[in-house]
Parts: sequence; C-alpha cells; structure tokens
Amino acid sequence: MRAAVAGASGYAGGELLRLLLGHPELEIGALTAASSAGSPLGAHQPHLPALAGRVIADTTAEVLSGHDVVFLALPHGHSAAVAASLGDDTLVVDCGADHRLADPAAWREFYGGEHAGTWPYGLPELPGQREALKSARRIAVPGCYPTSVLLALAPAFAAGLAEPDVVVVAASGTSGAGRSLKPNLLGSEVMGSVSAYGVGGVHRHTPEMEQGLTAVAGTPVRVSFTPTLAPMSRGILATCTAPAAPGLTRAAVREAYESALATEPFVRLLPEGVWPATAMTYGANTAALQVTLDERAGRLIAVIAIDNLAKGTAGGAIQSANLALGLPEELGLPTTGVAP
Amino acid sequence: MRAAVAGASGYAGGELLRLLLGHPELEIGALTAASSAGSPLGAHQPHLPALAGRVIADTTAEVLSGHDVVFLALPHGHSAAVAASLGDDTLVVDCGADHRLADPAAWREFYGGEHAGTWPYGLPELPGQREALKSARRIAVPGCYPTSVLLALAPAFAAGLAEPDVVVVAASGTSGAGRSLKPNLLGSEVMGSVSAYGVGGVHRHTPEMEQGLTAVAGTPVRVSFTPTLAPMSRGILATCTAPAAPGLTRAAVREAYESALATEPFVRLLPEGVWPATAMTYGANTAALQVTLDERAGRLIAVIAIDNLAKGTAGGAIQSANLALGLPEELGLPTTGVAP
Amino acid sequence: MRAAVAGASGYAGGELLRLLLGHPELEIGALTAASSAGSPLGAHQPHLPALAGRVIADTTAEVLSGHDVVFLALPHGHSAAVAASLGDDTLVVDCGADHRLADPAAWREFYGGEHAGTWPYGLPELPGQREALKSARRIAVPGCYPTSVLLALAPAFAAGLAEPDVVVVAASGTSGAGRSLKPNLLGSEVMGSVSAYGVGGVHRHTPEMEQGLTAVAGTPVRVSFTPTLAPMSRGILATCTAPAAPGLTRAAVREAYESALATEPFVRLLPEGVWPATAMTYGANTAALQVTLDERAGRLIAVIAIDNLAKGTAGGAIQSANLALGLPEELGLPTTGVAP
Amino acid sequence: MRAAVAGASGYAGGELLRLLLGHPELEIGALTAASSAGSPLGAHQPHLPALAGRVIADTTAEVLSGHDVVFLALPHGHSAAVAASLGDDTLVVDCGADHRLADPAAWREFYGGEHAGTWPYGLPELPGQREALKSARRIAVPGCYPTSVLLALAPAFAAGLAEPDVVVVAASGTSGAGRSLKPNLLGSEVMGSVSAYGVGGVHRHTPEMEQGLTAVAGTPVRVSFTPTLAPMSRGILATCTAPAAPGLTRAAVREAYESALATEPFVRLLPEGVWPATAMTYGANTAALQVTLDERAGRLIAVIAIDNLAKGTAGGAIQSANLALGLPEELGLPTTGVAP
Repeated sequence: MRAAVAGASGYAGGELLRLLLGHPELEIGALTAASSAGSPLGAHQPHLPALAGRVIADTTAEVLSGHDVVFLALPHGHSAAVAASLGDDTLVVDCGADHRLADPAAWREFYGGEHAGTWPYGLPELPGQREALKSARRIAVPGCYPTSVLLALAPAFAAGLAEPDVVVVAASGTSGAGRSLKPNLLGSEVMGSVSAYGVGGVHRHTPEMEQGLTAVAGTPVRVSFTPTLAPMSRGILATCTAPAAPGLTRAAVREAYESALATEPFVRLLPEGVWPATAMTYGANTAALQVTLDERAGRLIAVIAIDNLAKGTAGGAIQSANLALGLPEELGLPTTGVAP
Repeated sequence: MRAAVAGASGYAGGELLRLLLGHPELEIGALTAASSAGSPLGAHQPHLPALAGRVIADTTAEVLSGHDVVFLALPHGHSAAVAASLGDDTLVVDCGADHRLADPAAWREFYGGEHAGTWPYGLPELPGQREALKSARRIAVPGCYPTSVLLALAPAFAAGLAEPDVVVVAASGTSGAGRSLKPNLLGSEVMGSVSAYGVGGVHRHTPEMEQGLTAVAGTPVRVSFTPTLAPMSRGILATCTAPAAPGLTRAAVREAYESALATEPFVRLLPEGVWPATAMTYGANTAALQVTLDERAGRLIAVIAIDNLAKGTAGGAIQSANLALGLPEELGLPTTGVAP
Repeated sequence: MRAAVAGASGYAGGELLRLLLGHPELEIGALTAASSAGSPLGAHQPHLPALAGRVIADTTAEVLSGHDVVFLALPHGHSAAVAASLGDDTLVVDCGADHRLADPAAWREFYGGEHAGTWPYGLPELPGQREALKSARRIAVPGCYPTSVLLALAPAFAAGLAEPDVVVVAASGTSGAGRSLKPNLLGSEVMGSVSAYGVGGVHRHTPEMEQGLTAVAGTPVRVSFTPTLAPMSRGILATCTAPAAPGLTRAAVREAYESALATEPFVRLLPEGVWPATAMTYGANTAALQVTLDERAGRLIAVIAIDNLAKGTAGGAIQSANLALGLPEELGLPTTGVAP
Repeated sequence: MRAAVAGASGYAGGELLRLLLGHPELEIGALTAASSAGSPLGAHQPHLPALAGRVIADTTAEVLSGHDVVFLALPHGHSAAVAASLGDDTLVVDCGADHRLADPAAWREFYGGEHAGTWPYGLPELPGQREALKSARRIAVPGCYPTSVLLALAPAFAAGLAEPDVVVVAASGTSGAGRSLKPNLLGSEVMGSVSAYGVGGVHRHTPEMEQGLTAVAGTPVRVSFTPTLAPMSRGILATCTAPAAPGLTRAAVREAYESALATEPFVRLLPEGVWPATAMTYGANTAALQVTLDERAGRLIAVIAIDNLAKGTAGGAIQSANLALGLPEELGLPTTGVAP
C-alpha cells in the first residue's frame, strides 16, 4: 500500500515519514508541502537520509490521488478541501484540528470560522473507538494534549472513580508548536525556562478533552487546562486530577486501571511507585502512565508521558490508519524509546 | 555586619555567597561545610572567583560564633543543635526545613522523628509577617515550592476569592534537589525529559503550603500538590488553581491582586495577557505572577515563576535577614534577571 | 541466534538492548550486571518496556555461555577474564577499551596496568577491516571519539590529502561518561554549560586515534585531541583538521571523499554547503560528514557527527558482530534519526 | 553620566541594559530600536522589570544626542551614519562589526560593500590598548569569538611561545546569533544538538582574530577557525591551539600566562588541573582560562570560557567605555557568575 504525506517539511510530517520508513506494509509515495515545494526533502529533514533526494511536490489533488492513505499535516483550515478532492477509496488521516470536534459551536468559539464537519476520532483506546475506526475512510487524529489527557483519565471516568471536575496541567516540548518562526520558540528563550501560555480556559484543546471525557463518563465533564512549554524538543507530561468518588481506595484505583489497560498495546501502566518521565517514551508510540489517590486532598491523580510527535501525532495517526486499512494495529509502530 | 554561611559547598550555600558578594552591608565571614571542609571554596563554586581561595571550615559553634548573622544551608535535622550553640546576639537563618512547621504531628508524618520547634516564617509578603520578622532572632526560610504557592495564592485567599480546595502542579529545575549524586539527577537523564515525583500528597512541602494558606484564609485549606522535574538548572513555575468564589469576575481578581501587590518590592504582577516564564526571574529575588479566572471551568488560576535558589531560598533568606537586622528589606537583592 | 549483554543496566548496555530489540536475527538472551544483578531491567531502562520484567543476572561464565554472541559493556579491565571463560564458538564483542590498542606501551601509559592483548578492531570502514572482521571471534569496539575521528580523516590520509599533524576538538554528550555519579555530570552543572576536560594529550582515546590514522597513512600520525562536554545526552561533533598536502584543491578533496564513501552504508557525505549536526544522527547508526579545504589557513577540515551510543558504541558493535556472524552488515541497524 | 542604547530590544541591547542597571555612574537614557519602536521595553526584555514601562524610541540622531555615551547594538552597516550625527562630546561604542577591521580589503572580502573606517579596538587586555582607549571617542567592541581567542592566545604570542599557525574550534550558545527568526535557531532544533557552521575560513570573525594576533606577535598569524553552535543560551568555550615554540616547557607556559594576567581584573587563569566551563562565567564580565603544553603533539593549548553577551559583547563594551569616560575600568561590571 502507498502512503502520501502532505506537509512533509514540518515536524509532524517529518515524524510521519520517520515512522513510515519503518512500516513494513506502507510504502512512501508523494511528499507535498506549500512553501518548500520544489526543494529536496533532505533540506528540511536531514535526519531521514533514505529520503534525502526526494523532491517535495505541491499539495494538489493530482499529486495526492492514487494513494491508499493520505496523511495530512497541514495548518488547520486546509484538510476539508483536500479530502473533498479524494474519493473514498483513499483513506484520509488528518493530523490537524479541523474535524475533531462534534459541536460546531465549540469550533466557532475556539477556532473561529465555519466548522468543517466531524470525522471519526483517531484514538482507538477510547471505548468502542477501535471498532469504529476499522470502517473509517476519514480519521481526525486527536490533538497531542487531548491524547495524553484522554488516555490518562478515560479509565477513571469509565469506572466511575472521579467527579467530572478535572484540572490538568501539562508540560510540552517545543516541537508541539511546529516549525513556527516566533521569538518565544527560539532556543535562546526556550532553554533554561519553563513558561505558561493559553491559560484560563482558552487553549483550543480544552473542548476536545471535554468532549472525549464527557462521552466516556456519560455526564458533562469540565476541564480546567493549563499548558506549559518546557525546555525539550519532544514530550508531554500531563498531570490530570479530579475529585475522587466517595469511598474510593488506592487499591480500587489500581485495579480499575490494570483492568482497563491490560490488553492495550501502547498504554503502559507503570509499576507501583514509579512515575512517568517523558524520556521513557522518546520516539515511541507509547504512553507511560501512573495513577494514585491523594487521600489527604481527596483527589485522583493520573500522570502520563507521551511523545507529542509520536503517540501524540504521527504514531497515533498510523495506529488508526492501520485499523482502517485492515492491518494489525501495532504494525510498524515502535514501543521502544530512545534514552538516555 | 558579618555573615557566616554553613553548607557553603552546596547549591544553596553557593547562592547565598553569590548574593552576599553583592550586599553592601553584609561582609562574608566564615564558610563551613561537612565533607568538603579543608578544601578551598573555588573547588566547589568556581563561579565565585572573589572567594576562590577561601578555605572551608568545619561547621562548629566556635567557627560560627561572633557573626551578626549565620545562614544555615544544611540537610534537615542539623539546625537546632547549631542554633542552640549560638546566642541571641546572632541571628540564625535556616534555609532547611526543621523549623517551618507549627504542627508537630505534621512534622512527624512528613519528616519523621521529633519536631525541633517552630521559628518565625521567613516570608515577609504574608499578612503581618513583615513586622514579625523585624524582631526575629531565628528565622525559618520557606521551602522553594511553598514560597511560590503562597505568593501566588495568598492574595486570593486574603480577599476571599477562592474555595479552600487547591490544586498545584509545579515544575522545578534540578538545583532544587541539591548537589545529590542520584542517577535521576544526572544530566543524561534530566536533559530532554520532564518527570513527576512525590505524587499523591506525599511531598514534604505540602503541609507547609496548607499551613500558610490556612492562616491567610482563616479556614482550613487543603492542597493537592504535584511536583515535576524539568530540564533546567534553576526556576520554579507553579500553576495554582482553586474553585472560584461565587460571583467572581476577572476584573475583581485583577483588582484584588493589584491591590495586594502594589507595594511589594519583589512580587510582580505581569501586564494582562503576559504569562510567567522562569527566565524572567533567573538569578533575581523576584516573583513573576499572573492570575485569571477560568470562567468555563469556574476556577481561579494563578501562575508564578521564581528562581528556586534566589527568591526560593537564598534571596528569600537575605530578604528576611535584612528585616531582622534592621536593614532596608531590599538591600543587596537583585530584581534584574539574567536572560536570555 | 542468541545474544547476551553484560553490563545491561548502564547506558551502553541499554543501547545494545534497544538496537537488539529491532534486530531480526539476534534474540536477546542473558542480561547481566554487577551491582544491579537481581533487579528487573525495567528499574534501570524504563524506555525498554519489552524487557521490563527481565531479571538481571550476575556476570558469570555460566550465565553467558551458550550464546552465539556476547556483548560486553563493562568497565575496563574485566573483559579478558570473561572472554577467557567463553570458547571460540561464542563471538565476544567488547565495547570497552581493553583490547583496542596494539602497543602495550601505549596501554600502560594511558591506562596503567598490564595490557590484555589486542583484538580485531571493530571499524569496518577502515581499509581491509571489513574483510578481517568476517572471521573474527573476538572484536574490540572502537572508542566513541576514535570512531568519529577515524571515519572523518581516514579518507584524507588514504588519499594522501593531509600532513600527519592532526588537531581534533570534539564535543560529546554526557552519556559518553556513562551512568557515573560524579558532581560534574549532574544535570544542574551540565545544562547551560560547555566544558573542557582531558586536555593536553592525556585523554585515553588519543593513542587509539593515532594508531588508526597511522595505519591508514602508512606514516606516523600525531593527534592533538581536546574533548569537551556539551549539554546534551547523546552525540559527538568532532572537528578534525590537518595541514593540507601541497597543491590540494577543494574539488580534489570532495572527489576523494565521494569516492571513498560511495558504498559505505552508514557514513554519509552531506551535500556541499551543509554541515553536520548531531541531531541528524540521533539514535541512528550513521555518521554525517562534511569536508572542505580552508584555503586561507592551508588546512583540510572534516567535521563529523555521530550518536556516541549508537554508531559510537552499540551500533558499531552490532555492525561488526553482523559481519562476524555471517549476517548482512546493515541488518537491524537504523539509518533514520529521531528529530527534532 | 547618561547612556543611550540603540538596539534595545535585541539580546545585546538587553544585556547592555542589564549591566547598566547595576552601574553606579551611568544612568540609562534613551532606548531605541527599529521595528519595535513605540512598544514598551517590557514586551521585549521581561527580565528587566525596572525598565518595563520605558517606551522604545526610533533610532535617530535627535533621540541619541545629548548623552555622554551611546551604545550601538545594531545590525552591521548602520553605525557609521549614527556616529556621524553625534559630535565628539558623545562617546560612541559600537557592538557591531563595522569598525573593527583595519584592512579595507579584509572588510570587502568578508562583509562586502565599502569599509566604514577603523575605530579603536575595545579590548583593553591587548598590549597598549588600555591606554589607547582612555582617549577614545569612538570604540569598536570586538566580536565575541575574537574576544575569547585574543584573550586566550595573546599571552602566548606576546611571549613567543607559539608558532603563528593557529587552530581554533569554539562552541557558542545561541544568543550569539541574536534574536533572528531562523529555523536552525528554534529551540526544537537546537536542543540536544551541536552543529558546525561557517567552516573553512569563511566566518567573519576570522580576519579579526588574525589582525589581533598578528599585532601581538609582530609577525603574520593565520587562524583556522571553526565555530559550532551548542545547546545553551549563553557562553563561548574556545579551544585555541598553536605549534609550540622549540624547547617550550609546561612550566614556561604557566609562568608566562601568570605573569601576563597577574593584574588583569577580568581574565582569570584557573588553578592548574582545572579546565574552563562556560558556567563559571555566566552573566559575568570574566574570562576563565587554562593553558597547557601537549608535549606528545607539540602544541600549546589554551582553553577559554566567556559569556558571549557579557565579556563577549555588552560587558566588554562597558569596560572600554569606563576607560574612555575616565571611570575605573571595573566599575559596575560583575565578576561573579550565576551557577548552577
């Protein structure tokens, strides 16, 4: 099968290509981009020597058609038009935000403009979602932060362990902001500093977290989300807390998570007493998760580490694509991280 | 006046000396340590050339006596004995934990062993504390995390803006762990990784936060605290949230904080829309603070950045010592950070 | 075929295991160590979930016997005894220094003690070495710095482009020092700082560089080598210079390197004008190389980037082992880096 | 006395302001810039709260006139016109490159365009330069790399210890490239990576190094210079080597350097056996220097650390300005670094 990548010169596009190079069933077809079209991929992704001489094409329907799967790593607002130009014989997997939200009002509030419609949500670990993705022809890959938060808290809400009043504080590496030329993303300003941004309920990933947790809980869940930028290229560490349900015990929390995650190939509940570090998941399509009950404060606390570019974007995209293409879900996806 | 520093070869001791070198009224007297006694300071603190040739002495009563102020940067459990050997003509400022907690039960639960007693708490920004410190002869310098959290939330609880159910997630640079030879503090493991530790109500700074906020609020405040380790040497960024009081508005939050902080020399409320970064406070005795109301989630969110070694330890110690010695509170303390 | 790893809890051992997990013909057998024997591998290498439950054994002949290949990642001085206990039916690949040097006097000068003997040198890219390794039963894996310097300058000396008076300055990530608990390797001291060490001809890798280059040049080559420690976990960037041979031109330099490297699977001459960054090789068994002639100063300058743990240690070890085991040289070795 | 800073929103401008805030005799007057004129300084330099509300003006003769000293931190090509508009009653200190080179041909070769003329060179540590600067009304601040190399090797060439065939490899923090919005300066690409650039005799600082060393040596000195970018915000570590003069001994090297540096306030020869780290000089106007003889390779090796923004730019500028203004050379300049 052949896979095209639109947005091949960015960070998400580069990670899609890195992982596709190790995929035994997906051959890399067209590489496209906007301003870097016409240049060799090696000028943008020098860590991918196998593709160094491949020339980047423009992102057009003609170039993308004829692939079994097209991965879109584009700025938001572009994927609907691209997808409309491709028939249902092509699986379209959108790493952007356009089709994640079900509620047009939430889209307008957080993104502005008209909602492009809703696609199946590419997080197989959510209840029922693995089956749903097997017949999908269009997939909306979750945001990197929502991936982490939903994996961390879905087991709790599915088992009724927590009240629907969630507080999340997460640290992300700078690649989450893409290859954007902004002063606050310069190495000189990032190194040696942790900073907050998008505080107070305004980050665009907030309604996506609420949508996912609400579906699992069966009752409206609200999320107070604070993202921070950490001096590292990759990785998200999300601390996710919610008031504990009455009578909850640590043993019950452990048991619920062990049961929920027993057969998940990519979400790993760490041994008791071990807490996640993003280095555990560097370059891998895995999540490292730990959970406890803060008995003093009456809160369930789940901490999760993922690689924002891998499980948080490109790896998650390929995982869902595997399902929709009838391939084994785990095919070509690394569970081994690169450390130290 | 002459100042001695016990624990001069560690990170807190080094920062005390760095700041004392710029203090116009405090002359550096004895430098002491345990295992590094007998070696020149330059072997441990090569960034302090002015003191490179000074030989470190043993930490004994004889060496420390005769100073106007003795700063202790020792592992916990040692300060009571040292202080007992020094008369009330010597101000003793303890950067360790021994005398911070008022409740012996909390001490036993979180530290174990017998409580050494309670000293005046060295955070002048707390209500009434500035005056109290002026007559102190013994001062317990707050922990670095509690410094950040108390500065961030005291204005909210003093003004009744929030419910007493606090959630704090904080990122700290590695110097907060001292010069401890542990594998997880090696550069190879720290760089490129954010990790969680002490999760679930077990971090020793938790009761100290609750003690301070409870005193301000006049009602018991509970704190769910999750610390994380970030790949930087210095700095704490703490995200501090609590349920908003009924009817709270953003304008009211801003007004209360502006009013509370108007005359504080070291706590800076940032312009609206600007969020803290630890780089703003690198090397300075300042806190950079922002606060908002998350109307969607119904929570007050205060984010604060400090330098854990400066305002969080050594700078805070000198600020309180200035008060107790009858000097201007701001004397010798930098408000200018080093960036980028 | 089955592979054992002695020293499995260290950084080199962890990298061997990471790469072996992706090797299609080598199954991971025994894992051994010294002080961490008895504990699960997951306690030391949390990025390798596939091996998390494997218990580390003591490094004994009994445990290691019966494998097709044994990789040694031990402190120097231990490999001779281990190898003596294993018959020639077991390939022994030593990542340590014991058997790299041919000259006992150089060993005594730089390492002290008695020389344990010389094994075939595991750098297939050196002239004649690829063939020699095919029949080896014992292999000495080069040091990480010598790997970089020999790959960078062998083409120059093989083609007579340079005078034998080499100056090398190299920056290494901290993992090159292993998981040693030394203050100067703490994250707090490493981050934000580049430092020099082992200056003035005293670094132990110096005679190894001279030995390799002398063999290629056919005349004694002397090397002035200065290593520096950079704030990153992985990677070596080596700047290698030598006086240009009379009449040398840039075109001749380019041509000689293109010719020498045309068929090398892991050493990549970058396009003209592109200079190496260690990020290009992160996690990969590749070298990224560029060379030019400084006409003004009359020097040939080759700059090379490798991952010290991959091509510089564990990847190089597996590459040589592949040859000795009759497997394709490239088998199981990644050429794709992880970036950004 | 009043000091103006042109280019106040950049990194060099920010560092000038940081140091001027601690200068007892220089009051900060006008702050100017180009594209950021009209905005408050706090939007660009949030680590300088004392100046947060100051509004940046356009860089015009009117705004800059009337100051005792004007510091220029502008892109090259702008300083001649600004200086021409200011009379000799104003000291002009140019942190840019325009007036460093004496040879117009070298200017044209490395920078292109017409040479703007030569100003007194602001490195008081060079022979005779301290006196020359006392009467200067225009000063060309050295480049950051030449500052490091000239301080490291001038004592050797002044004493005839080395042959005039220098090889320098230096690592710089990213702030040396300024606040330029280039992809290779993004945090995501800088962190975890060391890279080479400007290799092969093309870096613009090369002729400046040769000019300075030639003057000291009294014979033409050629320099092969390779700069590298390291994952840190600040700092230069330069390894500077040259063939040892016949018969040179380590003792003679040590003696010559001790003698040359005995009275220098800002250049510190480290104790024997201690090698420089950039962290020793973070934020300080100091250089940390060590030198040895590599007897095996016959080379003198000097390694030096400076803070590129402090001694390498803004601190050096103020040091020279102090001399030209009749103030004590050391006034207001920190010798204490910020570490860890």
